[in-house]
Amino acid sequence: MSLRDHADQIIASALHAAMPDTAVKKALAQARFSQGELVLIAAGKAGWQMAKAAHEQLGDRISRGVVVTKYDHSRGPIGNLRIYEAGHPVPDQNSFRSTQAAIDAVTGLTEHDTVLFLLSGGGSALFEKPLIPEEDLNRLTKELLACGADIVEMNTVRKRFSAVKGGRFAELCRPAKVFSIVLSDVLGDRLDMIASGPAYPDASTAQEARQIVQKYHLTMTPLMESLLNQETPKVLDHVTTHITGSVRQLCSAAEKTCAELGYTPVVLTDQLCCTARDAGVFLSGIARYYAQAHKPMAFLAGGETVVHLTGHGKGGRNQELALAAAEGISGLDACVFSLGSDGTDGPTDAAGGYVDGSTFSALKAKGIEISRVLQDNDAYHALAACNGLLITGATGTNVNDLSVLLVK
Amino acid sequence: MSLRDHADQIIASALHAAMPDTAVKKALAQARFSQGELVLIAAGKAGWQMAKAAHEQLGDRISRGVVVTKYDHSRGPIGNLRIYEAGHPVPDQNSFRSTQAAIDAVTGLTEHDTVLFLLSGGGSALFEKPLIPEEDLNRLTKELLACGADIVEMNTVRKRFSAVKGGRFAELCRPAKVFSIVLSDVLGDRLDMIASGPAYPDASTAQEARQIVQKYHLTMTPLMESLLNQETPKVLDHVTTHITGSVRQLCSAAEKTCAELGYTPVVLTDQLCCTARDAGVFLSGIARYYAQAHKPMAFLAGGETVVHLTGHGKGGRNQELALAAAEGISGLDACVFSLGSDGTDGPTDAAGGYVDGSTFSALKAKGIEISRVLQDNDAYHALAACNGLLITGATGTNVNDLSVLLVK
Repeated sequence: MSLRDHADQIIASALHAAMPDTAVKKALAQARFSQGELVLIAAGKAGWQMAKAAHEQLGDRISRGVVVTKYDHSRGPIGNLRIYEAGHPVPDQNSFRSTQAAIDAVTGLTEHDTVLFLLSGGGSALFEKPLIPEEDLNRLTKELLACGADIVEMNTVRKRFSAVKGGRFAELCRPAKVFSIVLSDVLGDRLDMIASGPAYPDASTAQEARQIVQKYHLTMTPLMESLLNQETPKVLDHVTTHITGSVRQLCSAAEKTCAELGYTPVVLTDQLCCTARDAGVFLSGIARYYAQAHKPMAFLAGGETVVHLTGHGKGGRNQELALAAAEGISGLDACVFSLGSDGTDGPTDAAGGYVDGSTFSALKAKGIEISRVLQDNDAYHALAACNGLLITGATGTNVNDLSVLLVK
Repeated sequence: MSLRDHADQIIASALHAAMPDTAVKKALAQARFSQGELVLIAAGKAGWQMAKAAHEQLGDRISRGVVVTKYDHSRGPIGNLRIYEAGHPVPDQNSFRSTQAAIDAVTGLTEHDTVLFLLSGGGSALFEKPLIPEEDLNRLTKELLACGADIVEMNTVRKRFSAVKGGRFAELCRPAKVFSIVLSDVLGDRLDMIASGPAYPDASTAQEARQIVQKYHLTMTPLMESLLNQETPKVLDHVTTHITGSVRQLCSAAEKTCAELGYTPVVLTDQLCCTARDAGVFLSGIARYYAQAHKPMAFLAGGETVVHLTGHGKGGRNQELALAAAEGISGLDACVFSLGSDGTDGPTDAAGGYVDGSTFSALKAKGIEISRVLQDNDAYHALAACNGLLITGATGTNVNDLSVLLVK
């Protein structure tokens, strides 16, 4: 098998592991629900797929349920579940209405019942019930954006004014148990950050929220002042949480396949966040060191790199990362590939890029100079010229990127 | 012991291993010389230290010898060795004269004799005997610089016109054996590149040299035409070569100390060459991944990063690398440090920088914003403000940089 065959296998297994349905089924395989009612609540961009997978697994065991996803993200009915579509990234009336339906569905349950809560990216906008008038919420959002508060500060304040965020949705489920499956697209998997953690104990405190309000002189109505002082739940011992389908799963599935293919795998990080080009150059430096050992090694990194636009070409961060590694691995029995798990990389039809020891000279022979291509942010056309585009189509998941170096 | 204590220990052991005298003594410990004469030839910026170390080890076993080093780099007499100082980076008459003395010293030896050849950085200028008139050589150099030829192309052509480069010095030593100790400062240790490889088989060919001359329309005299066609040695079976004191040694000594301190060490590369800031951010991403495992890990990289000047502050690539990692490792039980093995980093009195999990908030408390500091290329002052400068003074060696992440 060629390096490219290996790359394709690693990509296929990693994407499979990161699919919402795989993830949900894997998490449910470990679940033991008590005898009472089982109510399904799904919120987020992958809400429909997650609910579908759960329904395929559990069928009529699910008493009833509510699914809230983004407009155009429902693919049809699922049993007797009520399926809503709503606004994202800005919540709208349908967000509030469907969230209320979810709250109604979990109200009045007993300690013998269970809420199966399926959460994915986008849940922050889609799953929301504000405790303050919309105009006050809009003003607050504008002030927070204008004052330079960071994302942690914003969330700390905003979740005080929500009926479901910061662990409050789990409170509403009591005395029923909550079995929560979280499909993560947040680097580092901070559970109180994913969709502002409706079913996870809030790490921030009322005191911190007050300090942020003072620091930025945010406008507070009397209602807001009062809500600001209400603490969010710090202990949710009726909740079991499975994080799944995260970039970590993407990495560990790739790691497993690398090992099966005979490589010694090393996961470097699941939080890669430097410049795409430099990540590629860094990986090529690792390649040159290990190429001398003649022992098959795989280095994996999950995360999301950054592209600095210096030109007007076509490409994406994964294509840039791969192409930037081409010169450094030139002549080696090695490859570097990188792709977005959602199947799209920048404004292109490719998921990412693949280069190996022959790419640099192949491009040179065509008169294509990689340094100039990168300067133009035009990785797409260079990779297209050497069969280096990775095309997967939309994958149905979104858990950041995967970058891999294979060296023999 | 604190992380900083660990860092200091790792730095001390790595620098010790990379010192010319340590390196020479280590290589000589494995040497068995035959009964005849032992002639020492040392060339390069570390020529004096290497010769001194060899003389301390071998004493009167050395029959005679020649040392060629840079002006102001001799520290006094060594036994009966003849010590010359000459021009660097541009060779001068003293380079030619002292190289001739070295050639004379190895002329007329028998197969029972041995030449101990000690080579270090700068040897390319210091150890040279041109086969063409100086004016022709100067014109060639100017033409090569003007036409855009790369360093490999330049060396391929120039070594054809040298009596000692491209393995030719080793040819002149025949029938004596050559025991060569090379102190490497070239990334990746290409032996035919270090000082243009006087005692190493030349990988380039006369045909390649002719092609480069044609490609760039270089001016050739009849003598040059004739020399262009003379092949350089491809087999030098009377030469034994020990590469030593290289960045690889720096890494492996650091790796060993990391292991002794309880870390599981992973050398990522000895050829790091991406942007300093991004290397720091990349390392901090590795830190965040491994911090969750709570198992002490050390990641090491040797090489030489690049700094893009965007401001007018004071700093160096190692200081930038470390400082760029500070935000990513903030709050973790981790540190990142990076230093130049020669003890200097940019135009500063520091060898590099050290940051740990407390650095980011310590600087923030002082009102120092790292992103702005990096934009100004002013890492020196920020690191000075948090006790993060590594000051070693001139170390006496120069084998690129060492960057380390420790995470517990």
